[in-house]
Amino acid sequence: MFDPVEKLKEFVRFPSVSAEPRYREGMRGALEFAEGLMKSIGFAVEVVPTALHPIILAQRGGDPSWPHVIVYGHYDVQPPDPLNLWKTPAFEPSVRGNRLYGRGSSDNKGPLLTNIAAVARLFEANPRTPLRVTFLIEGEEEMGSPSFGAFLEGYQDRLRKADFVFFSDTGLPNENQVVITTGLRGLALFDVHITGPKQDLHSGVHGGVLRNPIQALAEICATLHTSDGRVNVPGFYDQVVDAAPWERAELRKLGADEKAYADFLGIDTFYTPPGYTPFEAIGFQPTLEFNGMGGGYQGEGSKTVIPSKAFVKISCRLVPNQRPADIKRLVIDAIKARAPRGVKLEFVDQHQGNPYGVVPPGRPNTPADQSPVLARAFRATDEIVTKVWGCPPLYLREGGSVPIIAEIKRATGLDSVMFGLSLPEDNLHAPNESYNLDVMRRGIETIQQILAKVASG
Amino acid sequence: MFDPVEKLKEFVRFPSVSAEPRYREGMRGALEFAEGLMKSIGFAVEVVPTALHPIILAQRGGDPSWPHVIVYGHYDVQPPDPLNLWKTPAFEPSVRGNRLYGRGSSDNKGPLLTNIAAVARLFEANPRTPLRVTFLIEGEEEMGSPSFGAFLEGYQDRLRKADFVFFSDTGLPNENQVVITTGLRGLALFDVHITGPKQDLHSGVHGGVLRNPIQALAEICATLHTSDGRVNVPGFYDQVVDAAPWERAELRKLGADEKAYADFLGIDTFYTPPGYTPFEAIGFQPTLEFNGMGGGYQGEGSKTVIPSKAFVKISCRLVPNQRPADIKRLVIDAIKARAPRGVKLEFVDQHQGNPYGVVPPGRPNTPADQSPVLARAFRATDEIVTKVWGCPPLYLREGGSVPIIAEIKRATGLDSVMFGLSLPEDNLHAPNESYNLDVMRRGIETIQQILAKVASG
Repeated sequence: MFDPVEKLKEFVRFPSVSAEPRYREGMRGALEFAEGLMKSIGFAVEVVPTALHPIILAQRGGDPSWPHVIVYGHYDVQPPDPLNLWKTPAFEPSVRGNRLYGRGSSDNKGPLLTNIAAVARLFEANPRTPLRVTFLIEGEEEMGSPSFGAFLEGYQDRLRKADFVFFSDTGLPNENQVVITTGLRGLALFDVHITGPKQDLHSGVHGGVLRNPIQALAEICATLHTSDGRVNVPGFYDQVVDAAPWERAELRKLGADEKAYADFLGIDTFYTPPGYTPFEAIGFQPTLEFNGMGGGYQGEGSKTVIPSKAFVKISCRLVPNQRPADIKRLVIDAIKARAPRGVKLEFVDQHQGNPYGVVPPGRPNTPADQSPVLARAFRATDEIVTKVWGCPPLYLREGGSVPIIAEIKRATGLDSVMFGLSLPEDNLHAPNESYNLDVMRRGIETIQQILAKVASG
Repeated sequence: MFDPVEKLKEFVRFPSVSAEPRYREGMRGALEFAEGLMKSIGFAVEVVPTALHPIILAQRGGDPSWPHVIVYGHYDVQPPDPLNLWKTPAFEPSVRGNRLYGRGSSDNKGPLLTNIAAVARLFEANPRTPLRVTFLIEGEEEMGSPSFGAFLEGYQDRLRKADFVFFSDTGLPNENQVVITTGLRGLALFDVHITGPKQDLHSGVHGGVLRNPIQALAEICATLHTSDGRVNVPGFYDQVVDAAPWERAELRKLGADEKAYADFLGIDTFYTPPGYTPFEAIGFQPTLEFNGMGGGYQGEGSKTVIPSKAFVKISCRLVPNQRPADIKRLVIDAIKARAPRGVKLEFVDQHQGNPYGVVPPGRPNTPADQSPVLARAFRATDEIVTKVWGCPPLYLREGGSVPIIAEIKRATGLDSVMFGLSLPEDNLHAPNESYNLDVMRRGIETIQQILAKVASG
């Protein structure tokens, strides 16, 4: 078996930022690395071209009566900016203590390698394991998986014959507590561009006669939340389904410490919707966030200009049953209605994804027609996690989004067992991202046993 | 005599952006160019070092009984960004029609060269002209002249023996109407930096529990104006001196067309304080503008991050008798009082300058102790402009700022005759800045005659 830590270093070294064309070479490198690794453990690999970054479809077949699991992961990563905040360069993997630092180490290269290593060990220990495994490894997850829908269309018939999806692109609250994620938030992203005067103006010669587009943008953005932490857009919450009582109870078992969380974030006060703790807000409530904003002169010193343009990048996290297109329309309508006179608005659509939810077996609201293999996978996970980690997993919704999980459900009917391997302190999407190598080791052991148990029936 | 247009091309070719260290070579080039030119027309040149960019002090002396004029100008220019909006490169002078395009062509290299050419011709025509002339050409005007105060301290004794200051760093409304500027707005600049969480966060994992610093910034900025176009900061207008009735009357003579002005700006509605036309607002009222703003991810596509930081660059234009330090304090106090909980504020001071006003001879509010040579210069200007341009100049306040004019007044007691040579369509501080070469030719002729008349008594 390969050394998972050495392989992770190799993998992180490719700057596979899918969203920025200048990282094209890094994307190619990461693709070829993953392709080679899957071949090396005996999988038949198909590299499926898309409009942008190819998808790896790696299969190990077997008797059609064997359970069939699809393992999902992605080889692309977030942009590394701001670069100056990294202690070691983003694409030069560095092990310090029990952590491997580097962009993508935790999202998703480390957890994906954990799954690949578990599967490799499973078949190394028993090459006759009665389990069919298909890896789907995409390269556009951090861009919102624009090509994945078309891929699913094309491979729908093959994929829907599988039994369930297993993947690790979610989190665990601390290294002693596994969480099986039962919900993922959806996403609705778009940019707002505001134009005031037709060109940048001298703020002395023309200052005092027109509405500065930065001012207009601030005025609009300031209306989008209430002072008590709700999104201030009519209809925004209309489709939100309240969390089931067992979900709130499960979350309470986590016993998370608000003070410690505030310290971790570096804030002195939370800002959540009334009636929700911070942890409930993350799992059960939608958001509207400003991811970036810009306008005018941002360089050193000063430039006394009235800018022609300003923009803001908005993303909403959605919960069942909010629909991304509806939410975008509501927010854009509110912005249009609230824009002051004297400026022009333009909206640029970015990606979107549906929220997702799954109910484990034996809960009051478990669907009666749940797949027996899925139920077996949940039970195996519960049992093996309890054995390896010393306590059963918690079943919690997560604040992040993996929109393709909802897409897979829609296209193939398959539900997912989401076994999280990223810790809060892993700094996903932020400088100094890292992956905990103890979690990796235990993850490999656990997942190998879970899959063995699913195979043995 | 040198060819002023060819010399202007040479001058514009130096990228003399004082605010950005990477243009150091361009600053040196422009300095040496101006130094050489002054020497070539027979001036004794001293290059006075400062903490940053040297000041050129070029003198042509004479009998102490002769009138002594100080001509002020600057060899530095604004940054050229955004570069992609220039039709021809910012530092490659290009003559199209009767205009010379390039950063600094109109602010201030063209008008400065107009003055130098006028003086050169005056002494070429009559080397015995009984006039002493001192050029002060600085290199930090676009940064707020941080070294000029110390320079004035050091040269105060020499400079205060002069009679008045003459310069062209102001504007004229169209090429047929000269304006003598009687007021300049002051400046108060600072940046506001907001910190929310201690680092950038994943907007899914942590979204919904804290106040985004972009939101906080928007909420603060949105409070700083009223909906009817005033600055919404307590005490902001307390020191404003209303315009004299003759000033409003003079402005009406201009007969400026609001519709044409709106079209020029590319806006469909003005946003001025109640009771002020756009033209009155520019001359008589202070402002608070946002010159730049930034935070979070500004690149291609999207990055679902909650940024740790956001900032805005604020500048206020001030009118007599507002004081920059007081205004900064009022605005910063208002921002502190209005900042939402959960974010930290930091203020970075930028430059500032006092507003300035001068009253020509023969007005109801002309000071009784006005210098006779200054009064003679105003009268000569009125007479020669009327002769050369076909109508008398208007005496108007300008919206822009040349803070060192107030500094000179404070340090030396000298007032200024401000003969504007920049047209509104010259795009000062904006892409495609240009200088009208007809204005240059007529300016040279006019200023040569004005100085001849001041000399002849």
